[in-house]
Amino acid sequence: MPDTGQLSAVLERIDADFDNSLERLFALLRIKSISADPAFAGDCKTAAEHLARDIASLGFTAEVRPTAGHPAIVAKSNGHGDDTPHVLFYGHYDVQPVDPLDLWHRPPFEPVVTDHADGRKIIVARGAEDDKGQLMTFVEACRAWKSVTGSLPLNVTILLEGEEEIGSKNFGPFLETHKADLAADFVLVCDTGMWDRDTPAITTSLRGLVYDEVRIKAANRDLHSGVYGGTARNPIRVLTRILGGLHDDNGHITIPGFYNGVKDLPADIRAQWAALDFTPETFLKPIGLSIPAGENDRLMIEQAISRPTCDINGIFGGYTGEGSKTVIPAEASAKVSFRLVEGQDPATIRAAFRAFVTELLPADCTAEFIDHAGAPAIALDWTMKPLAAAKVALTEEWGKDAVLIGSGASIPIVADFKKTLGLDSLLIGFGLDDDNIHSPNEKYDLRSFHKGIRSWARILAAFAAAPRA
Amino acid sequence: MPDTGQLSAVLERIDADFDNSLERLFALLRIKSISADPAFAGDCKTAAEHLARDIASLGFTAEVRPTAGHPAIVAKSNGHGDDTPHVLFYGHYDVQPVDPLDLWHRPPFEPVVTDHADGRKIIVARGAEDDKGQLMTFVEACRAWKSVTGSLPLNVTILLEGEEEIGSKNFGPFLETHKADLAADFVLVCDTGMWDRDTPAITTSLRGLVYDEVRIKAANRDLHSGVYGGTARNPIRVLTRILGGLHDDNGHITIPGFYNGVKDLPADIRAQWAALDFTPETFLKPIGLSIPAGENDRLMIEQAISRPTCDINGIFGGYTGEGSKTVIPAEASAKVSFRLVEGQDPATIRAAFRAFVTELLPADCTAEFIDHAGAPAIALDWTMKPLAAAKVALTEEWGKDAVLIGSGASIPIVADFKKTLGLDSLLIGFGLDDDNIHSPNEKYDLRSFHKGIRSWARILAAFAAAPRA
Repeated sequence: MPDTGQLSAVLERIDADFDNSLERLFALLRIKSISADPAFAGDCKTAAEHLARDIASLGFTAEVRPTAGHPAIVAKSNGHGDDTPHVLFYGHYDVQPVDPLDLWHRPPFEPVVTDHADGRKIIVARGAEDDKGQLMTFVEACRAWKSVTGSLPLNVTILLEGEEEIGSKNFGPFLETHKADLAADFVLVCDTGMWDRDTPAITTSLRGLVYDEVRIKAANRDLHSGVYGGTARNPIRVLTRILGGLHDDNGHITIPGFYNGVKDLPADIRAQWAALDFTPETFLKPIGLSIPAGENDRLMIEQAISRPTCDINGIFGGYTGEGSKTVIPAEASAKVSFRLVEGQDPATIRAAFRAFVTELLPADCTAEFIDHAGAPAIALDWTMKPLAAAKVALTEEWGKDAVLIGSGASIPIVADFKKTLGLDSLLIGFGLDDDNIHSPNEKYDLRSFHKGIRSWARILAAFAAAPRA
Repeated sequence: MPDTGQLSAVLERIDADFDNSLERLFALLRIKSISADPAFAGDCKTAAEHLARDIASLGFTAEVRPTAGHPAIVAKSNGHGDDTPHVLFYGHYDVQPVDPLDLWHRPPFEPVVTDHADGRKIIVARGAEDDKGQLMTFVEACRAWKSVTGSLPLNVTILLEGEEEIGSKNFGPFLETHKADLAADFVLVCDTGMWDRDTPAITTSLRGLVYDEVRIKAANRDLHSGVYGGTARNPIRVLTRILGGLHDDNGHITIPGFYNGVKDLPADIRAQWAALDFTPETFLKPIGLSIPAGENDRLMIEQAISRPTCDINGIFGGYTGEGSKTVIPAEASAKVSFRLVEGQDPATIRAAFRAFVTELLPADCTAEFIDHAGAPAIALDWTMKPLAAAKVALTEEWGKDAVLIGSGASIPIVADFKKTLGLDSLLIGFGLDDDNIHSPNEKYDLRSFHKGIRSWARILAAFAAAPRA
């Protein structure tokens, strides 16, 4: 169990070494590890090898391990006995695609520290936050502990994957195969955000996700709209007609059975949430919007966190270049995703969506579907003991009470940790709403990176001192 | 006035020289003159220069003349006096874009003669029919006349443009500027089709066209659908909802006022059309469809020729690459076109469409529009004298009565010929419904090219012998 003097020395070390921490993050950010695009498979491998080498240099046994897709990394530092807590840290080194590239102010894989419009220092690059910046807060905290005390205050396994952004499809089987090797008391996940710029947070619920692609086909080839316009079925028309009917005028999703099993928020929680400073002014104005677009009989915070949603994430068909082309295309496609809440089963929702589309198909059309991802919603155990320890540590670092929050996003792998490894997860991260993750000009506040490292250093000490989970 | 012996010699010359005609067409087809894409502007210029050089070699005075866009060509052979008829031949050297490229069986700009599945010989390349193959039927007919008799049987001006596929926007002003220089008795346009493989046709009506692009914008950047899903307006959802409402369940267009001024077909014409062999079996089955998709209270031939239509020619928004990305994009766009009939004004229809979109825009969204093209429907003068002469010439060449037909397609420039030059147009072409124009694997029947040249040779002689228009 570390003493207070050790922790102080570790925190000082973090401050003194911060420029080097940043340089190490930059080295990782320069690797184009876009998991969605097969053209970057080599870069994903490079990122995995780079991280394994770096973590091994801290004295971990670190291995790049193959999966059916991009490789994972398993690294261990368990010099303590079985009576010391053992945490499994999870992060991902893969990043989102960078398009539309022309909206980036700088090349996405050439990280810089620059000034935000309001004067904050920010790190700008694809992955600056999600999840390279976040995972490096933990790695750098471990580095500081090792360098000051020669060891970590508890047993740590670091587990990093390369397919989070594409649904972690091969990671579930990977956990199953390496189960024995991944034993721990609980999991730490650093892929979430703060409540606001000054208030640290622990995320205790996550929405689930179903991501489907639909392709509608009609004629056996592209057609001239002069010759065939009026008589030939146009798959873009069919697609827009079907997708345009997914919501009613009040923002409710119209798929039969979609809301089955979804519970209303308890009145006391709803009252608490209604009192929070979560308003269109604080949440939507920064992104140029003013009116919540979801179910119009729900609080905005319900729309964002506790209600299921349906979004069209991409649509494509026909001629989309410059100018005009009078074509009726042979096919049109869309990517459609659903955020799920407790009580909704991903397989049931996917089937209901597909039935909805198929039911509305007119003559001469077929629909094909591709399953991209599926994961149920997660509600974490608010009473797990490490949570209390982490809450205290975060509060000490930030000088403001850490809050427990729900998240509208999905981290499907958290369900697998419970199901396959039998482990609860603690979700702590330092992202902010304006980080532009998945968007052009992704950034991570320099303060998030710095105080994130310091936070983990404190949390590790707190775990070592706390009763086991 | 040519004698019958001259015409016979010209036709023999065409047959004997056909391999060379084909080689000259191939040389033109190899030039990537895609007008829609600025990357191919140089190729458009090359095509114009190539054609001017070739036509000059026949003894025309041929000039490449600049427009505000891709250049035009004006070539003249008017050795006859004013008492000889003077025709103005119109064609276009620009072609449609080639995407989706992976559906072409061969590179689109490497022309070949190959066998159609049913044994017909076909020329395959982008532009093989539309309009390089068609315009070269006229040029080759002139070449044969010149080479056999040393002159053409009447005065000919050849006028070729490079922006037909993008709406001929700069060609109207060009006609205005060069008006005095383009005097003639009437216009010949070779950009239409036959009734069927054995039956030549003269097209006497054309639908008009309005082509608009709409871009809907919401947030000021792309958003993460986990964080913002449910609260942030999704422009793809907005776009599909609006476009999905353009038609009702019966296939009628729902834009207020859209059908104002559209006349019902006279009962006798409707009865004649109903008796034609124009059925889903003959027209839709070859393209893999079986049920007409237009207004369900109209004959299929009305849907194809005499009724206005609305089609979505392209749609784009969000992530459309491989795999998945949980993004709510900042914008989404679509290209929407309308085929118009007599009684509809393009400007009114465009304004009605834009009002329809704007009316349905929810809070926080804006719509931007781009005008790509607009032209009214055209009904030609069925009683013009050259039409009778051309009908006889076509009937002699094909051994089957030439028919007068309406076309569902649009050739906006025909209206400009009337308005600016005061000239009627005669629309004769040798395309077939299965030519895949605007689609992958565009083709032109070798027979269309060969008998097309022979047809023009006969038509020129017939005009010279006929009374003036």
